[in-house]
Amino acid sequence: MSLVIVGSLAFDSIETPRERRERIVGGSGSYCALAASFFTRPKVVGVVGRDFPEETLSFFRRRGIDLKGVEVKPGKTFFWEGRYGEDPNLRTTLRTELNVFQDFRPRLPESYRRADILFLANIDPDLQEEILNQAKNPRLVAMDTIELWIKTKRRALLEVLRRVDIFFANDQEVKMLTGEVNLIRAGRALLEKGPRWVVVKKGEHGVLVLGRDQVFGLPANPTEAVTDPTGAGDCFAGGFLGSLDRESRVDGRSIRRAAAFGSVMASFAIEDFGLERFRRLKRKEIEERLLVFKKLVRF
Amino acid sequence: MSLVIVGSLAFDSIETPRERRERIVGGSGSYCALAASFFTRPKVVGVVGRDFPEETLSFFRRRGIDLKGVEVKPGKTFFWEGRYGEDPNLRTTLRTELNVFQDFRPRLPESYRRADILFLANIDPDLQEEILNQAKNPRLVAMDTIELWIKTKRRALLEVLRRVDIFFANDQEVKMLTGEVNLIRAGRALLEKGPRWVVVKKGEHGVLVLGRDQVFGLPANPTEAVTDPTGAGDCFAGGFLGSLDRESRVDGRSIRRAAAFGSVMASFAIEDFGLERFRRLKRKEIEERLLVFKKLVRF
Repeated sequence: MSLVIVGSLAFDSIETPRERRERIVGGSGSYCALAASFFTRPKVVGVVGRDFPEETLSFFRRRGIDLKGVEVKPGKTFFWEGRYGEDPNLRTTLRTELNVFQDFRPRLPESYRRADILFLANIDPDLQEEILNQAKNPRLVAMDTIELWIKTKRRALLEVLRRVDIFFANDQEVKMLTGEVNLIRAGRALLEKGPRWVVVKKGEHGVLVLGRDQVFGLPANPTEAVTDPTGAGDCFAGGFLGSLDRESRVDGRSIRRAAAFGSVMASFAIEDFGLERFRRLKRKEIEERLLVFKKLVRF
Repeated sequence: MSLVIVGSLAFDSIETPRERRERIVGGSGSYCALAASFFTRPKVVGVVGRDFPEETLSFFRRRGIDLKGVEVKPGKTFFWEGRYGEDPNLRTTLRTELNVFQDFRPRLPESYRRADILFLANIDPDLQEEILNQAKNPRLVAMDTIELWIKTKRRALLEVLRRVDIFFANDQEVKMLTGEVNLIRAGRALLEKGPRWVVVKKGEHGVLVLGRDQVFGLPANPTEAVTDPTGAGDCFAGGFLGSLDRESRVDGRSIRRAAAFGSVMASFAIEDFGLERFRRLKRKEIEERLLVFKKLVRF
């Protein structure tokens, strides 16, 4: 079993209604790998500049994350600046500097090519396709995307979608991609485009998983305190795929468990800024929160 | 065990993106009582004009609904006209004619006064309070409201809220009433204002139930086809309170079961226009759909 994650490692400047943090480590690849590292030993593909903190890389390594696929290039690390309103689901991107990501051509190291699970986190669909072409018969391919690619690279995105097993998207993206207002119809329309599973992330409303012959839903962890929503979706995917990497089969049962673990990891991520919550997270807390989710829906 | 429902009986003209219906029977009291009638024998308090169809009243009676508290007055029945967009959660009120509701002073018939459960469906909070003063030690009081009363009769509404056990509201109303964006914080703030349970109806995102020491959540029935969303919230309350009326205790377990039955009844209501779905609904279908909900969240 092995999980390869292709995504970004970044610096984020984040403003919430209560606090502001400058240039803390983030990026879809970082969040996702860290969340997955509580279940398996993920391998990461990405790029950082020389300014990326060695301390963070050691932290990743201590968590069992394989960084062979992370290039260190001269120049500055990808940078994102954003602001959240009182409603944590509403965010504004204030600045994006691609930096070393500008001409990044992701390459799977030889030792990554036979990965069981390949996750194409949010990057340009053309790059996602390139990676996909380098993998050798992965058991499972999953992808994520963002509004930007739906708007600017729709055709390339649909091309990748055709070749993946699991598609992660938030409710807005699912509606935008299909033109459907009803989430179930939208999800079903996406199932027609290739994936076997469509996983709709709905923020404070939880998650909806559609398979060809079943539906699964889970409310979000009921929390009063969202400190920093950044990376929630990536941590959901990390927990989801990390959990799946431990399973012998991909079926309704393991997918449901995966969605529950994904929700658990996302719920931890938002309790602190950046990756901070994972520095002190214990395996026992994960099991305890899974129980919270079980109790939340029991009737 | 007995359940008294105070609400409106009405004519509705409804426009959806696909169809339009003129002057079909609706109203919070009608929807709620009909949904509850699959669990108990509800008693209704309300008013209709001479134009209200005798056929509908017989249908209510056949379903075991006690209409002793429904006055028939000279004049026309309350009328509402509304339009739904592609998103069934967005509706526009086009016209409201109070008619016989104009100077309605609800009175609990003697045989209603010792009701175990009293439900104050959406009507003017002053009338809700009047009714409340007529009841004799109900075991449980529940209330619903709408945006209009939050905006125009906030103080009276908070006065009633102080005296009820269960408060039903949709997510917008909960946020508007508390000024909180986070639903959990908003719900907790409402628990401070009186009720023991706050039940937040979230449409396609399901329901969230907050008690003083527990939280329960359930996604909505995954459906592609919403024919007419009118009355979904009232049917939720009807199924909820009807189910609760059969229980010997009001506690976490029975409240969770009630929320599940409420979701089931709401999910049927929206499958057809007005009250139509309930004319052909079988008890067996209710049990089957409860199983759908159980499967939906099982992991």
